[in-house]
Order: sequence, then structure tokens, then C-alpha cells
Amino acid sequence: MTATSGLLARGARNPGSQGALRHLNQERLVEFLLANGPSTQAELARGTGLSTATVSNIVRDMAAKGVVSTSPVTSSGRRALLVQLADTGDIAVGADFGRRHVRIVLSTLGYQVLAEEELALPLGYDVPSALAEASALLDRMLAEGGHDRESVLAVGVGIPGPIDRRTGTVLQGAILPEWVGVNLRDLENAFRFPVVIDNDANLGALAEVTWGANRGARNIIFVKIGSGIGAGLILNGQPYYGYLGVTGELGHTPVVDQGVICRCGNRGCLETVASTSVMLESLSRSTHGPASTSDLLRRGRDRDPAALRVIGDAGAAIGQAIGNIANVINPELVIIGGPLVGLGEALLEPIRRGLQHNAIPIVAATTNICVSSLDERAESLGAAALVIQNALAGLE
Amino acid sequence: MTATSGLLARGARNPGSQGALRHLNQERLVEFLLANGPSTQAELARGTGLSTATVSNIVRDMAAKGVVSTSPVTSSGRRALLVQLADTGDIAVGADFGRRHVRIVLSTLGYQVLAEEELALPLGYDVPSALAEASALLDRMLAEGGHDRESVLAVGVGIPGPIDRRTGTVLQGAILPEWVGVNLRDLENAFRFPVVIDNDANLGALAEVTWGANRGARNIIFVKIGSGIGAGLILNGQPYYGYLGVTGELGHTPVVDQGVICRCGNRGCLETVASTSVMLESLSRSTHGPASTSDLLRRGRDRDPAALRVIGDAGAAIGQAIGNIANVINPELVIIGGPLVGLGEALLEPIRRGLQHNAIPIVAATTNICVSSLDERAESLGAAALVIQNALAGLE
Repeated sequence: MTATSGLLARGARNPGSQGALRHLNQERLVEFLLANGPSTQAELARGTGLSTATVSNIVRDMAAKGVVSTSPVTSSGRRALLVQLADTGDIAVGADFGRRHVRIVLSTLGYQVLAEEELALPLGYDVPSALAEASALLDRMLAEGGHDRESVLAVGVGIPGPIDRRTGTVLQGAILPEWVGVNLRDLENAFRFPVVIDNDANLGALAEVTWGANRGARNIIFVKIGSGIGAGLILNGQPYYGYLGVTGELGHTPVVDQGVICRCGNRGCLETVASTSVMLESLSRSTHGPASTSDLLRRGRDRDPAALRVIGDAGAAIGQAIGNIANVINPELVIIGGPLVGLGEALLEPIRRGLQHNAIPIVAATTNICVSSLDERAESLGAAALVIQNALAGLE
Repeated sequence: MTATSGLLARGARNPGSQGALRHLNQERLVEFLLANGPSTQAELARGTGLSTATVSNIVRDMAAKGVVSTSPVTSSGRRALLVQLADTGDIAVGADFGRRHVRIVLSTLGYQVLAEEELALPLGYDVPSALAEASALLDRMLAEGGHDRESVLAVGVGIPGPIDRRTGTVLQGAILPEWVGVNLRDLENAFRFPVVIDNDANLGALAEVTWGANRGARNIIFVKIGSGIGAGLILNGQPYYGYLGVTGELGHTPVVDQGVICRCGNRGCLETVASTSVMLESLSRSTHGPASTSDLLRRGRDRDPAALRVIGDAGAAIGQAIGNIANVINPELVIIGGPLVGLGEALLEPIRRGLQHNAIPIVAATTNICVSSLDERAESLGAAALVIQNALAGLE
């Protein structure tokens, strides 16, 4: 970290000090606000297990010190006090690289977006050039906002590929082969900031439970349907990374017996029948020419039969793979992300059908499926959330 | 809980007290010892994040008060001090019900087995009679050991079926249909003790990371291969229950296109080709008469071709289903439990092959597979561990 200004410095703990309990309780509230954004006092009490009296005392104290600000709101028809972290001046940056774009967001530690921009990249771009362009964009955004470089805590970077968390290196199997072997050091050299790196689907999942409509959900699967199909997991309320960090490889669930050989070396994988590239290729047979994502979206919304068939078959296969995982993970919610979320029910209906068909009855009946409310912003917002949560870990 | 004697009473926390930090640190050590059993001071420091000086001070203090006992040991060739919880007199009971047995274990909170017995039950037994027999067995075991009923904290009960944790009720889909609808109240009435209930595979997983050879493993899948095939998960070091508690339904992964209709209503599920019942049925074609589990074990160990083919095909299908899940969960270890673990490599080899065939390369290469070291004791020990861990939660 380059900066430990503001909140972080205030939150630093002296392990041997007296008054340790009050301090611990204050940190718990700060952590909850960092993780969940503005919350009422009642939500703080429920979320931390502290008594309402304790919460109220500490909030009054923190408000007097300028750590939080409070404002009266109405919650479930009753008056309540909304508590949010005051602006500390610290900035978390999220940068999401896709096949043909990079999107950058600047955020406060209180989950307030300060700036957000997207830059188109050429298909098959060269990684060092893309990193240089992204770094220049970030520098410009900071300058335009009048933010010091010192106020940036770190840059969270999202990449559509599996990442070995032991080394921070993008592994074979990335949907963008040009990224394979890129590591944390390369990114830090390009951005000249500390960097944290994660898979884009993991960041989508994190965004949903921090920025999104599903704050506080404890067990979710975020499925990103793109040129690859990957899933990010929030389990027991925490991002889940498993042994190495290579989780959520849903796209490599075999769904077709004796199917096409997949880039992973297996055959009949979900990605071979349900990625956006495969859907566009299928759709192009009915258009006698190449079809784009926007064609697929438009024709799907117009309920064009070929488009609905393509989406229906892909969706059912995705639902089947989700069903296998839901049988084991029993999530409360599956959130669909990626460029096709604008299809809404035309996409959700076949996925739901595939899930119903493959999950045991009680899991099928209780697993909700929806599209991401954050759309193409999810991954970059998740990357900023990762920086915010790492700042939080620094408090512990 | 009927009893809060001994350790639990000593551990009770006054949230407003001074010296709170030392108290919190002491609790952290007790929790670690409860969860991990006897540990060296170095292991305690590593496992809790406390400094070795802090650990050493608190251990000296706890030993003086009789909370723990210490003994010199040699660890990695160096002298070390082994710390274990003193006997508090509290007893955790584990009871595991199978298709034709109930197994009961009595344990101290320090994971020391006091008594262990198994009772045969008739196939298709009536649940109330089985509960009455189990309760009588428990009473006899307590009497024989000279243990007061008051020393029993609770009875952990393992059942081979999905359990709705909201109500503590055994759900449709249990491999023992006679158990469907049985709930916590029924079990408490039968045992006349507080009861905690869980699925047998979940308990097997818990046993592996508490009693077993894999203490401290953070992300494991325990796969119980029996008349049903279920999995228990330890994720981020904690038992994982998902939304309702219906996790690990690995047996209902579709593995055969247009396969046999399964009892769950889907078709071609793993259980339709790889349960022990299906294996025995297949094997009986080569024996011209019914085959038993012990026949399968003996003939598998003798490398009889029909037995190896039956085990090989079932194992490969199980490995395929595990591969799908490993792609998403990225576990460090998959542990195989159930009556066939005595087959050892004859069972592991085809499972490994199925996993290699279906998992992406890095997951296939880094997921270890082994058989349970606890054999038929796993589920009952896990049920006792659940009681121990609930006692631990009472400390918080």
C-alpha cells in the first residue's frame, strides 16, 4: 500500500492497549460499513451481533470524530438513522480488462463512485500496449478529478482467466490467451501502483454482494456468460477461492457426450455449446453473414425464432451445468452476468428450465436466478471492492 | 444444553469486563484446541496468529488454573510443549444411523474417545424402534462408564439424507425413506438429551478435519459411496451448509445421457450407475447369485476381473462427477468414505482417472484423492465433533 492516510491510520490497532473491546467493536462496525455500504443502525446491530445500545454509542462517538456521517431515513415505514463512512480521501481503483475493452472506476472506501470510464481495445490486443493505455487513462482520470497519486490505495485488476493466487499469475485456460503468464509484477510496473488481481467472474460476484442489489446475500453463484463461461462464488458471505484460486470453471462441465473437443482438452464442455461466440456462430447460419452481440440482443428481444432457439439451447445447457453445482453448493441465488443480460427473461427462462431439469427438487425449487443489476459495470466495481476489502483486512 | 459445567462455565464471557483482550486470546486458544485437538505451542501460535510469547504466557496461566495440561514432546526433531485441554467431565455423544446399523461414540471435549459401540439393525427398520434401541444403548454405555446423564452436552445424530436446517427435518431424497419427515423433536424425545442433527457425509467431512489424518485441511470434499452417494464439504476451514443445508448431492449429477430414471426424478444420475447397490447388482450377474459388500471387497482385493470392471466403471463415473465439482470448488483434497474404502487403490485408481478426464488440467493435477483413515467410524466421530464444535460456539 502506498497510503495509509485517513481511515486506515485511524483504524490501526495497538494490540496491548486498554479499551481494547470498544476499539474492537468500533472496528467491527467499520468493517461492516466497508463491506456493506451505508447501513441503518438496526442493520449494523443485526450484522455485527452488537447490541443496539452499543451500536448507538459507538456511532455517536465516531460521528463526533468525523469517521462516519449520519442522516435520518425511513426504513420499512419506520424512522431510522443511516450511517455511512465519511470520505477519507483514500481511493480504490478497479480496472476490468475484457476482449475488447478496459473499464476503470475510481471509488471512495465508502463505495461512492468518483469516476468511471471505458476504453475500446482492438480484438487480439497486445497486453503491454493495453496496460500502457489503461495506465494513461487512469492517470488522466486522477488528474481530472484533482486526486493525488498518494490517495490511491491500490488498483484492483480483473482478467477473464484463471489466476494462480500463489503467484498472482494468469494461467493457461484464460479466454484471452495473450494474458497467459502475465503476473502481478507486470501489472504493478504498468500502473505504478500496488495491484491486486482477480478473475472477472469472482469480481462480478463480489460486486453483487457489495455494490449490487444483493448486498448481504451469503451464498451466491455469479455466472458470467461471454466468450468463456466462468463463475464466481460467494460462500458463507465471503469470496471463495479454494486451494489455488482456480474456482468456478463452470464452462468446462461436460454437457455433450462425444461432443466437440474444447480448448481445455476435454470434450463436450459447456463452452463448446453455450459461449457467446458459439451462439453468434450458430445465429450467423440464419443470417447468411456474421452476427454481432448486438444483433443477438436485438433479435432475442424481438423474439426472432432463430435467436430464441440459439439462446434457448445455450441457456438450457448453462442451466444444466448450474444445476450440478447447485446440487452441491445449495446457493440462495444464481446471478447471470455478461453481455447478454439485456435479454432478460429470454435468457433466464431456458437457464431456469435447465436448472429445474437437473437439480434435485428442493434445490430447484429454492434457487433463485436473476440477471446482474450492474450489467457491464460489475467486474470493474468488483475490482474496486476488492481493493476496499483488502484495505479492510489491513485494519485487522 | 443441559450442562454448562467445567470448561463452558469457565469460558463464559462478560462482554463489558476489563482484561477483555487477554480473555479473547485465551478463548482463541481454547477454540483452536477444541477444533484441532492436542497441539504444540508453535502450532497454537501459527493457528491463532498470536505471538509465541503471548501463547506461552496464556498457556502457563491456563495450566495453573487446570484448564489445560502440558507435556514435553519432540516435533520435527525439536523439543516442544504439547498442550491439551484438561478433562472437563463434559461428554459429547455421536450417533450414526445407517441402513442396518447405529454406531455410538462418547467423547470428551478434547476429542478423546471414551466408548464406542455398534448395534446391528434389521434392513428396512422402523425408525421409532431403532431410536429406542439407540437410546437404550447410549444409556447403557453411560452407565458402564460411570458417567452422569448431566455430563452429556448433546447427542449429534448423523442420518444418510438431506436435512433442512431451518427445521431440522429429514427431507425427501433420503436414502432411507423411513427417515423422511423425522425431525429434531422426535430425536430429542427418543434420546432425552439435546440433539443436533446432520447429514452423514457432512459429518464424515467434519471428522476428517477434526479426528482424522487431515486436521487443518481448509478445502475438502468428503464423498461417501454407499447405497446413496453424497458429499460433505469443508470450505475455508468450516463445514459448509449453503442456503438450506442441502449440500453435496453429488449422487444426482447426470452422468449417462438417456440413462435410467433416478429416485430423484431426473435420469442418468450418478447413483443410478455407481451406488454400492448398483455395483452389487452388476456383480451378481457374474456370480449367479446375490453378492454382498464383503464379496465385492474380497473379490476386488483379489483382483477378480468382474469385480474390477464393476468398481472401475463406477469409480470412473464418480470421478467424472467429482471433476465437475472440483472445477468449481478447487479443493485441496477429496476423501473417499463408505463401506468400500477397504478396496484402496482398486477404487481410487478409476476415480482418479475419471477426475483427470473431467477436470481442467491444473485442477486435475493438484487435487489429491485418498480414502478415509477413519473408515466406518467417520460419521459417528463427526457427529461427536459437531457437538464439540457447538459447545465451542457457545463460548463465543
